[in-house]
Parts: sequence; structure tokens; C-alpha cells
Amino acid sequence: LDDRELLQRVMEVVGKDCCLDDCAVIPAGDRYLVASTDMLHRKTDFPERMTEWQIGWTSVAVTLSDIAAMGARPCFVLLAIGLDDTSSIIPLLKGAKECCDTYGAELAGGDLDHHDELTMVSSGVGEVSRAHLVRRRGAVPGDLVCVTGIPGRAQAALEGYSEFDRFLLEPRPRVREGRILGESGATSMMDLSDGLALSLYDLSLAGDSGFALESGKIPAIPGIPRDKSLELALFGGGDYELLFTGGCDLFPVKGVEATPIGHVTSDNEITLDGSVLPRRGYQHHW
Amino acid sequence: LDDRELLQRVMEVVGKDCCLDDCAVIPAGDRYLVASTDMLHRKTDFPERMTEWQIGWTSVAVTLSDIAAMGARPCFVLLAIGLDDTSSIIPLLKGAKECCDTYGAELAGGDLDHHDELTMVSSGVGEVSRAHLVRRRGAVPGDLVCVTGIPGRAQAALEGYSEFDRFLLEPRPRVREGRILGESGATSMMDLSDGLALSLYDLSLAGDSGFALESGKIPAIPGIPRDKSLELALFGGGDYELLFTGGCDLFPVKGVEATPIGHVTSDNEITLDGSVLPRRGYQHHW
Repeated sequence: LDDRELLQRVMEVVGKDCCLDDCAVIPAGDRYLVASTDMLHRKTDFPERMTEWQIGWTSVAVTLSDIAAMGARPCFVLLAIGLDDTSSIIPLLKGAKECCDTYGAELAGGDLDHHDELTMVSSGVGEVSRAHLVRRRGAVPGDLVCVTGIPGRAQAALEGYSEFDRFLLEPRPRVREGRILGESGATSMMDLSDGLALSLYDLSLAGDSGFALESGKIPAIPGIPRDKSLELALFGGGDYELLFTGGCDLFPVKGVEATPIGHVTSDNEITLDGSVLPRRGYQHHW
Repeated sequence: LDDRELLQRVMEVVGKDCCLDDCAVIPAGDRYLVASTDMLHRKTDFPERMTEWQIGWTSVAVTLSDIAAMGARPCFVLLAIGLDDTSSIIPLLKGAKECCDTYGAELAGGDLDHHDELTMVSSGVGEVSRAHLVRRRGAVPGDLVCVTGIPGRAQAALEGYSEFDRFLLEPRPRVREGRILGESGATSMMDLSDGLALSLYDLSLAGDSGFALESGKIPAIPGIPRDKSLELALFGGGDYELLFTGGCDLFPVKGVEATPIGHVTSDNEITLDGSVLPRRGYQHHW
């Protein structure tokens, strides 16, 4: 079973609604709370050269990225840590706290346990007005599909292009951009943590729509051959860029560095230059 | 380092305020949100005979117990699961969902990962009016100190008194009682998951007060010799009863089965029948 097949079984118990977005959505007066939890392990989720400080930072960043993908403002983060070595607690917490501070979230509490393998679980809560919530569903045929930044740089670092290390080791969630996109009327959104191809398939599943991409529009990674750059963007993991859709009148979005890479279709297919895009990328296998 | 020594180091980074209560407290308009996260592992936290359904139930129950200990109403729970066997996902989720349903919380979302050892992390958010929040600090010398139910039954089950299995295997968090106690004016509160003795030391640390207990007042576990029963209540883990303080006018609290076991003092000592109570009980060692 891969992650997405397992998710099908989960949906049978807990309902489809709570599985299709980057965050759970909970009504709270005239606003929504959004909430996400992410479990990460040393061997499978953190590159070997990542420091403890960077592991703390990244654990919070992935959760803030989920909150950003809903158009929401992060409020607070809880951190449950299964420590394999008590000496790592201080740098882990310092990295986590600095990431919270950078994006205006409070590191509000947590739990400590011990474990053979370092396990980090960050849970975050954000808030957003009802009008500005953005889900994975909502794209309309004819909308543009866009990405922030330059996808593929984290994977490039993983494959030895060390000039992109900071994208892999200290990912910057697009918190500011997510809120602006929500306020500007983006029609659907998610973050890119599993690569562009898989994320497009997720967005297609949630929104019952397709996408026609043009390879020439996908931002090139500077200093990497074009074919390789495209491969990294489509199938590489570890980016925390935002993937979103919106009407043509959305562009350019003031304050958001983003690139239209194709458009939304009504036929549930995902194509690149007219050919079906392979459904592969970063995912765990069971 | 034991849990509490480690906590001292954590407080140096994240601040003392976020470590002394069962939940983090976040202002939200005229109310507070309270939030807690708990990490549990198969080998250290779940008895071998616990079923997958019961593991799911218990993982949620511990978090709802933390929310109850603040006097708050549970709103939603997120569940991050590190699965050691994909076939266990359905019973785990069914147990978790039934516990949520029983106490009026929404199982709003989660994350799945795989792991050598089953790892469950439940994170819960509750809400409470500003007037009814109860913290670990707040006890006043002269207040009564009380417990709900009969502490020690989970430990009794662990030691072979199988008639108490349900307290160990399907703990019932005191959600209704916690809210009533908040609304009735309890001055401080926490849950009893680590045993009565350690919990009293935690409550003393947070509230800068002491406690004088009378052994004759601690509820006896039916069918267990008195000395053994007292040992189980004071030093056994796995209960999810509430420990709280309040003025004499608080009693009896309508709708809450609770027993005064002593009173609050101003001298920071914890005594049982006049002798210092050993600071031991259920805790992990590093």
C-alpha cells in the first residue's frame, strides 16, 4: 500500500472531508480554525547532514506550510518529540522556536518521550476568515494553475547541488504568500511537499478537475540543465512551495512571486505538453 | 534525566508558562483555546493485551483528559500515527473515533507514517470561557484537595486484578466532571495520569503550595487490602482521574463523584498523615 491507497481506507472510517485538504477545517464563530499534524522520523524524513536545529526548524515549517496552503494565519504549534538522545533537546527546541517566531506562531506546548529513532510530531492551528479560506477543491476550468518560487530546489540539494542546500535543510514555508493568495481570491491551493506531479494528482482528486501544463513555463532552476531541472520540479520532494489556481484576473498577485505553468481543464487528465504526466514522486511505500 | 529534570531544560528555551499546565492556553476573543499533544508508543505506553481498538481509544482519551483538566470542552482531535503494520489502521481509527464521538470531539484529521514501533500522537484543542479556565496554579492554603473516582484501579489491573481491566484498557476521561468543576469554581486542577504522589508534586510546583493528606480519606479500591490499595493510588500510573482543589463551599459538587483527601498548606511540603510523601510514581527514565 502506498500513502494514497492507505488514505482510501482511512477515509472509509473518518470520512472523505477530513482527508482531502492540507488542514482540517473547524468552524469557530465567523472564522475558521485550520489544524494540521505531521509526523517525521530521523531516518526517513531528515537528510543525514541536517543539524538538530534544522530538524526542529523543519518540523515546524512543514506544519506552517500546511496552514499557509489554506490561506490561514498560523496561531500556535504543539511539538511532541520522541527523543533518541536527550542532549539534542535544546537545539531541536531552539530551531522549532525560531521557526515559530519567524512566522508569528506561538510554540505553545508539547510532549516529550523517548524513542529508538528521533520522532518529531508538530501540530499547528491557524485561523482565517470564512471568505478567505482556500481548499484543494474549487478550481474552475480555464483557471490558471501556478506555483510560487522555483520547485525542485530541495531535491536538487538532495542530489548534490549543494548551492540549494538551504531549500532542503531550512525550508521557508510560504506563510505570507498563502494569506495574500487567500485574500486575493485563489480558487484552490495546496503545498508542494511531495513534488509537482503527485500534488497535481491530489489537487485533481480533490477538485474533480484536470490540468494541462506547459513544460516551457515551469520555472528553471538556475545552473541546472533544463531536462534535469524539469525532472526535479515535477518529481522531487521536499519543497514547500504553494501550488494554486485562480482566474486570469488574479495575476500578477502583488507581493507573491508566482508563475502560471498551465491551466485547469474539465477532463480529469493531467498532461504536460499534451502527454499524460506520470503519477510518481516522493511518497512512502508500505 | 527523568521527565521532570528534562522539563527544566525545556523551560529554559520555551518559557515556564507553557510547561506547567496539562494544556497550552491561547487567548481567542472572549474565550481561551486549550491545546495538548501526547506521544505514546506500543512498548512503553500500551499493555501487551490492549487491542488495536483500545489503543486508538486510549490515545484520544489521554488528550481529552488533559483538556478536561483545564475545565474546557473538547472541540477536535488530530491523530498522527506511525504504523508498524498497515492492517491495524482500521481498528486504531475506529477506537479513536468512538472515543471522540463519546465525548463530543471531532476527529478532524491526521497524518500517517510508518515506523518500526507503533507510535500514536494525539493532539487536541478545547475551549473554555475566561472565567472557567482552571490551571495547576491557584490553590489557596486551607482549600480542600480532592480526587474524582477511585485512583489506583488502572495500576491494580496492571498488577493482575483483572476486575479493573476496563480502567487500564479503556480509560474514561473525566470530561463532564472537568467542565462542572471549572464552572463550580475549582481553584486548581490536573489529571492523575502519573499517580497521585507525582501529580501532587507537580501541582505543588506549579502552585507554590503544599498538601497535607490523610490516608484514611483516600478512596479504597474494593476487594484489595487497604495497604495495597493505598500504594496503588499513591504511586500507580494510568488513571485518568482529576485531582483538584477548592474552597470548603465547593462541596459537594453536584454531578461529580469526588472525595476530599486532605487540604492545601502554605509550606511546600507534601505529607501523608504528617510524614513526607515520597516523590515517586510512574515516570520514564532517560
